[in-house]
Amino acid sequence: MKESWSAFDTFEPHFRPLVIIELAKDTKEETKEWLTQRIVDKKKKEGAQLLVKPLVKEDGGKIDGNQNLYLVGASHLRLLLGAETVGLVKECNDNSMRTFTYSSRNTFKDFAEDNHDFLTMAERQYIIKHELENLRAKDERMIPGYPQAKLYPGKSIMRRLMTSGILLQIFPLHDTEELKKLWYTWCGQVKISYQPLDEIRCYFGETIALYFGFLEYFTFALVPMALIGIPYYVFAWEDYDKYVMFASFNLLWSTVILEVWKRCCAIMTYRWGTLLMKRQFEEPRPGFHGVLGINPVTGKEEPVYSSIKRQIRIYLVSLPFVCLCLYFSLYVMMIYFELETWALDFHEENESYFSKLMLFLPSIIYAIVIEMMNRVYRYAAEFLTSWENHRLESSHQNHLILKVLVFNFLNCFASLFYIAFVLFDMKLLRQSLATLLITSQILNQFVEALLPYWLQKRHNKKVKKRVYSIKVDTDLSLFEQVNLEKEMGTYLGTFDDYLELFLQFGYVSLFSCVVFKRPFSQPTANIGVWQLAFETMSVISVVTNCALIGLSPQVNALFPDSKTDLILIVVLAEHILLALKFVMAFVIPDKPRDIQIKLARLEFESLEALKQQQMKLAAESLKEETHGEKKMN
Amino acid sequence: MKESWSAFDTFEPHFRPLVIIELAKDTKEETKEWLTQRIVDKKKKEGAQLLVKPLVKEDGGKIDGNQNLYLVGASHLRLLLGAETVGLVKECNDNSMRTFTYSSRNTFKDFAEDNHDFLTMAERQYIIKHELENLRAKDERMIPGYPQAKLYPGKSIMRRLMTSGILLQIFPLHDTEELKKLWYTWCGQVKISYQPLDEIRCYFGETIALYFGFLEYFTFALVPMALIGIPYYVFAWEDYDKYVMFASFNLLWSTVILEVWKRCCAIMTYRWGTLLMKRQFEEPRPGFHGVLGINPVTGKEEPVYSSIKRQIRIYLVSLPFVCLCLYFSLYVMMIYFELETWALDFHEENESYFSKLMLFLPSIIYAIVIEMMNRVYRYAAEFLTSWENHRLESSHQNHLILKVLVFNFLNCFASLFYIAFVLFDMKLLRQSLATLLITSQILNQFVEALLPYWLQKRHNKKVKKRVYSIKVDTDLSLFEQVNLEKEMGTYLGTFDDYLELFLQFGYVSLFSCVVFKRPFSQPTANIGVWQLAFETMSVISVVTNCALIGLSPQVNALFPDSKTDLILIVVLAEHILLALKFVMAFVIPDKPRDIQIKLARLEFESLEALKQQQMKLAAESLKEETHGEKKMN
Repeated sequence: MKESWSAFDTFEPHFRPLVIIELAKDTKEETKEWLTQRIVDKKKKEGAQLLVKPLVKEDGGKIDGNQNLYLVGASHLRLLLGAETVGLVKECNDNSMRTFTYSSRNTFKDFAEDNHDFLTMAERQYIIKHELENLRAKDERMIPGYPQAKLYPGKSIMRRLMTSGILLQIFPLHDTEELKKLWYTWCGQVKISYQPLDEIRCYFGETIALYFGFLEYFTFALVPMALIGIPYYVFAWEDYDKYVMFASFNLLWSTVILEVWKRCCAIMTYRWGTLLMKRQFEEPRPGFHGVLGINPVTGKEEPVYSSIKRQIRIYLVSLPFVCLCLYFSLYVMMIYFELETWALDFHEENESYFSKLMLFLPSIIYAIVIEMMNRVYRYAAEFLTSWENHRLESSHQNHLILKVLVFNFLNCFASLFYIAFVLFDMKLLRQSLATLLITSQILNQFVEALLPYWLQKRHNKKVKKRVYSIKVDTDLSLFEQVNLEKEMGTYLGTFDDYLELFLQFGYVSLFSCVVFKRPFSQPTANIGVWQLAFETMSVISVVTNCALIGLSPQVNALFPDSKTDLILIVVLAEHILLALKFVMAFVIPDKPRDIQIKLARLEFESLEALKQQQMKLAAESLKEETHGEKKMN
Repeated sequence: MKESWSAFDTFEPHFRPLVIIELAKDTKEETKEWLTQRIVDKKKKEGAQLLVKPLVKEDGGKIDGNQNLYLVGASHLRLLLGAETVGLVKECNDNSMRTFTYSSRNTFKDFAEDNHDFLTMAERQYIIKHELENLRAKDERMIPGYPQAKLYPGKSIMRRLMTSGILLQIFPLHDTEELKKLWYTWCGQVKISYQPLDEIRCYFGETIALYFGFLEYFTFALVPMALIGIPYYVFAWEDYDKYVMFASFNLLWSTVILEVWKRCCAIMTYRWGTLLMKRQFEEPRPGFHGVLGINPVTGKEEPVYSSIKRQIRIYLVSLPFVCLCLYFSLYVMMIYFELETWALDFHEENESYFSKLMLFLPSIIYAIVIEMMNRVYRYAAEFLTSWENHRLESSHQNHLILKVLVFNFLNCFASLFYIAFVLFDMKLLRQSLATLLITSQILNQFVEALLPYWLQKRHNKKVKKRVYSIKVDTDLSLFEQVNLEKEMGTYLGTFDDYLELFLQFGYVSLFSCVVFKRPFSQPTANIGVWQLAFETMSVISVVTNCALIGLSPQVNALFPDSKTDLILIVVLAEHILLALKFVMAFVIPDKPRDIQIKLARLEFESLEALKQQQMKLAAESLKEETHGEKKMN
């Protein structure tokens, strides 16, 4: 009975597919059999105990070109046990958040044995991904059929398959119905004020929901600035004191915004359960390589790479390279200014409609060159970061973000700095700002949203044609869908979206991720290194704004005699503002009081449970050893 | 047999006393009986299961005036179980640090059933203090004999006795032999290079050991600065570039020092086990009052005080008061400068030996006034902080430290700032610096070390006389010792010592804590808010040093034409230095790699254990529910 259970499930044709595995076309049969068997095998036999079946057409026959696609799912019970393994945190009947355990399942809100929506789609897919990635080699020394693809006990099978080129991709399936519903609540309604963050989180997971949450929060947080700015434009206030007040308000407000975001973030992630989720031990990222050694943390065999070697690569290769690129970028900027001067001279010498157009040419060329350099540099940064061979995905990401951020920052803002503080040309500053912003916005929208959308459309037609040409059928939807999605681009995380938001502080392509393959959910409790980036930006903005105020003619008019006094006062104001920012960041708690209390309560309860357990043990020990103690005295 | 065990231990006269309880002289007999019974009672009956006896003379008769002193101790076994309760972390045989549990006691280094030194003196006394403080009311509604001293289930008995004035003090006993040994290793040896931090920690606990560790570290960390400074004085280098290099080195070095201290601190506290110790739930501090309500964290009855009321008290009373004091302090400073001018005028008008002495008078008066103001303000700050009614001892301490720190900082440095940046008088700056430092140093040494030492000596003689007059005996040492120590002042924590170190960056009264009552050990993993204070100080020092360099005649000589350029360059240099400091603080990891790995290893092991447990449960659940699942499908 026990033995037949998993076999029975394997050929169960009606389970709901959640994740797709695509193998290479020339994968050997024995490998496929071994892999599916390992996925289906029970936990006792160190399998993943999931359900799997090849993608087939309705009439049951395999299609030649597509026998490499497998649908993976799991029984409801298996998913619940998986939720316990990954440490999901769900809401209880008493409105507190607790780590889900199967034995206490009935105390959780909305739990019912037949409620298959207790876990969100994103969570179910995350569980399956986690179980697949944690499918580990037992005594196999290699992947069957591929003697060169070595395995060692405890090595993740999926990662080895991936690095050996046998496994092409694993991706979660879009759910067209849910997606339609999500689309409707998102933008089908008239009001566009609030985004359905909870629904987004259910479908795409926490990382993407947090991104949209941040986007929405940021948009609303900027409203007070805009409102206060209105009278300045309407009444054309140009008084020194009002001007300074507005600027000071903005600078302090940006700190308040970022601190309050941490609180909002804590509230959201508490409700979603990720704030309480224990961090799992991180596996090496797929690209990580090294000689086989002993991991000092786990004590298990895994590739090991010397930290000193990595440090040398970072500080002696990557750092100089980045500096060189920054220098080159500044060099290009200087050329731009020469072009600008040349265009101005040309316009002055022979004024015409053409020469007027020519005035804008340098800025446009510069914007395009910047975009190109950004893209080239991005590839170089990705290559270098891979070459630095970071063990953890998170540290890889942080180093990549740092590299790209510094370069993007310099590229986008260096020319503005130069214009403002070296040329002192406020008119040119305004003009450049407008040109740069508009050009890069248009370019980005085109490259990131319209282009892939258009390519996808064309491709969809092709695939549809191909599919129809094989067999004209009305109910090929799943088969068709999988084949469509496997060709879609992979959404590479929220990196570019945050970067755009970071660089433009504006509105970005809202729905770009829909024409991408559905991304796996990644439980996160905050926006990570981006919080730091935005905070750094807000500190730098104090310095630049104080300098700009110091340069403004109105303020200069107040100190007709002494430039020195002016500078000293501006520097003093800047220091006070910076000090205020740090005090505010320190005084505003990162988590609201009720979340703090809830967290403390949870910690207290687990400590109490431990103490109760220990006291029981202690009482028993005391009883047992009384006699011995007595003899000793 | 079980019943008689605790009774037997109670009257066991030969246990080693660790902690002394002093009750008020007029405490009723029934209260004393009830209290000793509760302390002796077994865990099962919600007692503390400790050993207790009244302090008696050798011949067994009580002495009239002293029947209120009780010696508290515990059996070796009881202490080990207590170590488990408080979550002590000790070293294992495999050199890793693990939370001590009684059942795994044999895996710990140096553990043997008869090795009574397995726990350090400080740990044993901490355990007894913890057990006494956690002695809670059962069904008593009041303290027997004192109907006005209300109790409620779960209320700490010791805290109620303390607030009712029945319990005068609880303090750990000095161990004269150990103290002599410690004294010898500390300063009996010729080399004074290294302090015996491990021995200090064993005797006084982690807080005090960390203070001396910080003191030692700081002294050695300043050596490179002194060494690099030597050639500047020897060769009288006054070049602009060398000067700036030295200053820049110092400013960055101070950041390195503070970051590396965090690492040293992590290494020490890892070895001592406090880095890994789980934070226990903090009880309200003894002085906390409020109406009886439900604590939202524990769900138990305890006094509750509205957070909003506290905020109002902090921001509407304490903050204005502190600002007023700061203003007053500045006002006094202005008077000092008027006095200084007056003395100078007086000296110029009628030059004499007397008038020369008069020149130093204002500085000396000012230093004395500052000291007096400091002391008065300190009382006010303590009163205000108590009145703010913080629930936790830690938050009470932080608010007190903040108040005192700001005032001390202004008091000690405002006049120097004024002289440097308003009067531009470098000669007066040097003179004031020297006078202030030396005066406050002498005053502090006198008030904090010599005065109490002298008072103690006189008092000791009196007590000895009194004791001898009652009965001349050679073996009254314990009786005598307890009576001596109960009159000693209480060492109020490392607050003043850190404050002195903070303000003077110099060497402080090393052995002041020996003439104090022995303090209870408090396990700590870092120097807390002081790290922040020193870091803030190091940021401020960048600003002041850059400004001083900008004011120096050598640097001014380099920019004969344009003050503006000079200021801009100084400001630029300052910003670069500040940015470098932040980058360095960010890049240098707070914990050394091997400590990070050890911590990660521990976390990994506990996660693995959890997973194993869950997988077992999951396998069982799957087995059990297979039939049900099958039917559902």
